[in-house]
Amino acid sequence: MRLYLGLIHFPVYNKNLETIASAVTTLDIHDISRLARTYGAKQLLVVTPLTDQRELVQRIKRHWTQGYGASYNPDRKEAIELVQVAHSIDKARQYIKQNEGEDPICIATDASGSVGRLMTFDEARVLVRGGSPVFIYFGTAWGLHRGVLEEADYVLEPVYGPTDYNHLSVRAAAAIIIDRLVRA
Amino acid sequence: MRLYLGLIHFPVYNKNLETIASAVTTLDIHDISRLARTYGAKQLLVVTPLTDQRELVQRIKRHWTQGYGASYNPDRKEAIELVQVAHSIDKARQYIKQNEGEDPICIATDASGSVGRLMTFDEARVLVRGGSPVFIYFGTAWGLHRGVLEEADYVLEPVYGPTDYNHLSVRAAAAIIIDRLVRA
Repeated sequence: MRLYLGLIHFPVYNKNLETIASAVTTLDIHDISRLARTYGAKQLLVVTPLTDQRELVQRIKRHWTQGYGASYNPDRKEAIELVQVAHSIDKARQYIKQNEGEDPICIATDASGSVGRLMTFDEARVLVRGGSPVFIYFGTAWGLHRGVLEEADYVLEPVYGPTDYNHLSVRAAAAIIIDRLVRA
Repeated sequence: MRLYLGLIHFPVYNKNLETIASAVTTLDIHDISRLARTYGAKQLLVVTPLTDQRELVQRIKRHWTQGYGASYNPDRKEAIELVQVAHSIDKARQYIKQNEGEDPICIATDASGSVGRLMTFDEARVLVRGGSPVFIYFGTAWGLHRGVLEEADYVLEPVYGPTDYNHLSVRAAAAIIIDRLVRA
């Protein structure tokens, strides 16, 4: 499995469907890096064009991998070590290509299921376990810009339970999606 | 399905395995109530013996169900409406009994898998879908006190991916567990 997760802060929508760069939520970094470590993903790429936000992520990473936090909580160190920052989704893809020697298959996630080449969980599961590098990315704020969904190789079908309500946090949605795709 | 979720702040362990009442994390309330709403759970019971912490939860609930938040974000209102506070796990069970006319089957969750009557995901799935009231609870901080695990009817097997690392946040673990138990 050559799986990469992405946490995307630009381009995403705000509540009024304007395109924004969202602020990094510290807890997202912790939750999703631990998820990545638990499920054997190779890296969590945190994407933001904002310099101060990339520095914030680097500071969190240093604290938990080199600073006091590394000895205070070694489990957390193991997770946070997987975090990399990237200026853009394109830069993240290039980084994966350099690492893996080939372009990753890019799968965007979206709660609407109305844009892009939709893929079922079963199909995505086959891809992830098939040996090609796969880059799955998650939008913050009110979700990934439709341009991102259109440019991705695939868009994963939305997560639903038995109701028609699917407003999960990115932390919960990422956990459910990775479990569905990777668990034995 | 008559499913209740619990978010337990006492008795739980801190990092040094001392028994504590943990502080409420606002984001937990949002994430897990949205999870409850998505998967058709009847209520999210937030358990804490600390008066100021119960008031904090009530204030969050009021803001998003009656205050400015209710009109700002109706989706969030639908989720937060499911939140109830309780002084203790016992009080939460009594509340469910009152609602349902019978005692719930109590399933505790734990990352260690070493204490209590362990139950597999397949077994728990049958229970949850069987029609009896079921109360599944999640520990905060470093996990539920072993007395809670011993007194529960069952303890759910831990969540694992393909690695031996299972240090997920309560937000991620709850999402994965509820998806495994409830999804069609």
